[in-house]
Amino acid sequence: MRSRISHMAFDSTLRLGVLGGGQLGRMLIQSAIDFNLQVHILDPDKNAPCKDIATTFTVGPLTDYDTVMAFGADKDVITIEIENVNTAALKALEAQGKRVFPQPHIIELIQNKLHQKQFYLEHGIPTAEFIETANAEEVKSKSDFLPFVNKLATEGYDGRGVQVIKTEADLAKAFDKPGFVEKMVDFEKELAVIVAKNENGDITTFPTVEMVFHPVHNLVEYLISPAAITQEIEEKAQSLAKEVINKLDMVGLLAIEMFLTKDGRVLVNEVAPRTHNSGHQTIEGNVTSQFEQHLRAIMNWPLGDTDTLRPAAMVNLLGEDGFTGEAKYEGMDKVLSKAGVHVHLYGKKLTKPFRKMGHATISDTNIDLLKEKIKFVKDTLKIKA
Amino acid sequence: MRSRISHMAFDSTLRLGVLGGGQLGRMLIQSAIDFNLQVHILDPDKNAPCKDIATTFTVGPLTDYDTVMAFGADKDVITIEIENVNTAALKALEAQGKRVFPQPHIIELIQNKLHQKQFYLEHGIPTAEFIETANAEEVKSKSDFLPFVNKLATEGYDGRGVQVIKTEADLAKAFDKPGFVEKMVDFEKELAVIVAKNENGDITTFPTVEMVFHPVHNLVEYLISPAAITQEIEEKAQSLAKEVINKLDMVGLLAIEMFLTKDGRVLVNEVAPRTHNSGHQTIEGNVTSQFEQHLRAIMNWPLGDTDTLRPAAMVNLLGEDGFTGEAKYEGMDKVLSKAGVHVHLYGKKLTKPFRKMGHATISDTNIDLLKEKIKFVKDTLKIKA
Repeated sequence: MRSRISHMAFDSTLRLGVLGGGQLGRMLIQSAIDFNLQVHILDPDKNAPCKDIATTFTVGPLTDYDTVMAFGADKDVITIEIENVNTAALKALEAQGKRVFPQPHIIELIQNKLHQKQFYLEHGIPTAEFIETANAEEVKSKSDFLPFVNKLATEGYDGRGVQVIKTEADLAKAFDKPGFVEKMVDFEKELAVIVAKNENGDITTFPTVEMVFHPVHNLVEYLISPAAITQEIEEKAQSLAKEVINKLDMVGLLAIEMFLTKDGRVLVNEVAPRTHNSGHQTIEGNVTSQFEQHLRAIMNWPLGDTDTLRPAAMVNLLGEDGFTGEAKYEGMDKVLSKAGVHVHLYGKKLTKPFRKMGHATISDTNIDLLKEKIKFVKDTLKIKA
Repeated sequence: MRSRISHMAFDSTLRLGVLGGGQLGRMLIQSAIDFNLQVHILDPDKNAPCKDIATTFTVGPLTDYDTVMAFGADKDVITIEIENVNTAALKALEAQGKRVFPQPHIIELIQNKLHQKQFYLEHGIPTAEFIETANAEEVKSKSDFLPFVNKLATEGYDGRGVQVIKTEADLAKAFDKPGFVEKMVDFEKELAVIVAKNENGDITTFPTVEMVFHPVHNLVEYLISPAAITQEIEEKAQSLAKEVINKLDMVGLLAIEMFLTKDGRVLVNEVAPRTHNSGHQTIEGNVTSQFEQHLRAIMNWPLGDTDTLRPAAMVNLLGEDGFTGEAKYEGMDKVLSKAGVHVHLYGKKLTKPFRKMGHATISDTNIDLLKEKIKFVKDTLKIKA
C-alpha cells in the first residue's frame, strides 16, 4: 500500500484504461465526458456497449497476461468494470508505477469467494457461517449444516457456481470443485451499500439500498433507494461498509451486498470492487452518481456528495423469454410518458432471454406513486426480437 | 406544417444527424447514449467537442448547401445545435420526407433578428418597441428614440451585431447595414424559459430561470433556477413561452430570453430554437434535462417531467483573460470538494480569453449556501494556459 497522498491535481490529459467495455464502462464514459477524460477500453467482444463512445476501443481477452500488459503500456490510470481479469498483468503494471485501482491484490482476493469469506472471518467482519469444502464428497458430508448454499471458490461469475442445497436429496448435485458451504440466512431484507475511498483516505458511502423481492415468486423485483430500514440499521450498514473498505485498504468503489437478518444483524454477503447494478439509480437519484464517484476515487479527486435527491427505484430491463435476435422495445413511449422515468439502454443490438439490455430508473417523492410506476414499467416495457 | 401525429414508436436504429458539434452537441450525445441513439455530427472544426464521442463525425461548413445535403442524405432525423446553417438545404431534405426539427423555415425566421421582431409584432407577442433601419443614416435619424440598442438583422452571432446607443454621441458608431433600433428596456430582471413541443402537440416548459447580474459590473454573473419571482410573474413567463412556440408552430426545443420590466411586464427579448446555455443546470437540477427533452421533442416521444429537484445555479467557465494555449484547470480539486458542484468541461484543448471552456452546476437546498458556493467556484476555478 502506497502512503497516503493529498488529492491529485486535476489533469484531463491523463489516459484512463478500463478492463471491460460493457454497460458499466458505458455509463462510466458518459460521466468521464464531463471531465474531458479520455477513456480507453479493452473488451473481448467487438460489439461491446462501449465500442462507439470510447476514446479508443481494443478487442482482446481480459484474462490474457500479454493482452492486458500491451493495453496498459500507454495508460496512466487503470481500472476495471469486471473482476474476471488477469491480475498478474495488473500487478506488473502497478510495479511499473502505474496507478491501478482497485489494487490488483484486492481484485485477486475478491475473485476467490472462499478467500473473500476467510478475509471476513479473519478481520471480524460479520458474515454468514461457512465451511470450506474441497469436493462433492466433502459437501455431502455436511448434512447437519443444512440448509446451505454451495459456492465454488472461483468461476462463479454471473450467477454460475452458486446453488442452494435445502435437503439431503439436493446433496446429490454438490459441486465437485473447491469451494464452501454457507449457512442459509433467513433474512428480512437484502441491502447494498456502495462505498468509495480515494488515495487521500477520504471515504464516502451512498445511502443503503434495498433489493425488493416479489412476494410470491421470491425473485428480486426492483431495487429501491433509500432502503426502508430504521436509522439504527442504516447506521450499522453504513459503518459496516466503511469497515470493509478500510480493512481491505482498497482505493476505488466497492459495492457491498448485505443481509439484514430477522434478528437485526447486518451480514456481508458478497462484494464487488467496482460500479454495480445496485448503484445505477444514483445517476438520477443522488447528487453524485456512482460512476462519477468511481472516477473521483481512482483519480484521487475529492469524493462527491451522495445525498438523495429523490427516492428512486431501479428496474433491470431484461430480454423477454422466448425472443432472440435484433432488439425491439415495446411500450417505450408509454413508459417515457410517466414523470420521473429514465431509461438507460446499453447499446446491445441482440436480445436473448433474460439478457440485461438496460435499466430504468424511476423517481418520485411519493413512495406509493413510485411503487405504482415501478409496476407500470415492469408490465409495459418488453424487449422482444 | 405536417398534420399532428401520435407519438412515434421508439426505434433506436433511426439515424440522427446534428448540424454543429460544439458543447451543445456534446451534451446531447451524452443524453442520446441512454436511448442508444446513433448521433452523427457535422461541424466545420475538426477538433470540435463532439469529435471523439459522435457515432460519426464529418468535417464541413454548415452554411454550404452541398455539404448539408450530402450529410443529410442518409439521416432519418436532422436537428441543429447552432442557427447559422444552410436552411435551403434543410428545406430540400425536409421536402425529401426527412424529419427536420426545428423546421427550416423557423430557423430561417430566427436567423433574421428583424424578422423575429416583426413576427412578435404581427402575432401580438410582447416585445420591446423597435424601428426598422436600413443603414447608419436611418439609425442616426432616431435620436428621439434614445437610448436604444442597434441590432443587425443578420450576422449577429455570438454577441456580434448588437450595440448599445445611449447618447447622441454614440450615434456615430451606428451600424451601416439593415437592422433595427430597439428601445432600451429598463428591466428588473432578465429571465429565460425553455419550452419544448413534439409533433403530437405535447408542450412542456421548464421552470423560469434568472440571469443574475453583478451589482457593480453589470455583467451576468450566474444563472439561477428557479427564478426569484412571484407566482404571477412565473405564470406570465410560462404562458408567454407556450404562446411563442405555438404561434411559431415549432417542433423542438425553444429557449426564450425575456425581460421582466420594472412595471411587471414580461417581454420577449430573443429566442434560440435549440438547447441553450440557460438550460445547462437542468442536467442536475431538474427531473429531465434540456438535452433529453430536445431528443424527446424531435423524436416525437412523450416529453419529460421538468420539475425542479433542487435549486441550481450555472456558472460559465471561461478562459482567463491573458492566457492562450493548452488549457490547465487551476483550483479544480477545491471546487470538486464542495457538495453539489458538478463540472462539465467541453473538451476544448486550447483556451483563449473568455472562451467558453465548460460550465459548473451548483445545487443546494439552501439558497444562501448556494450563493456562497457560486462565489467560491467563480473565485477558485481558473482556466489558464
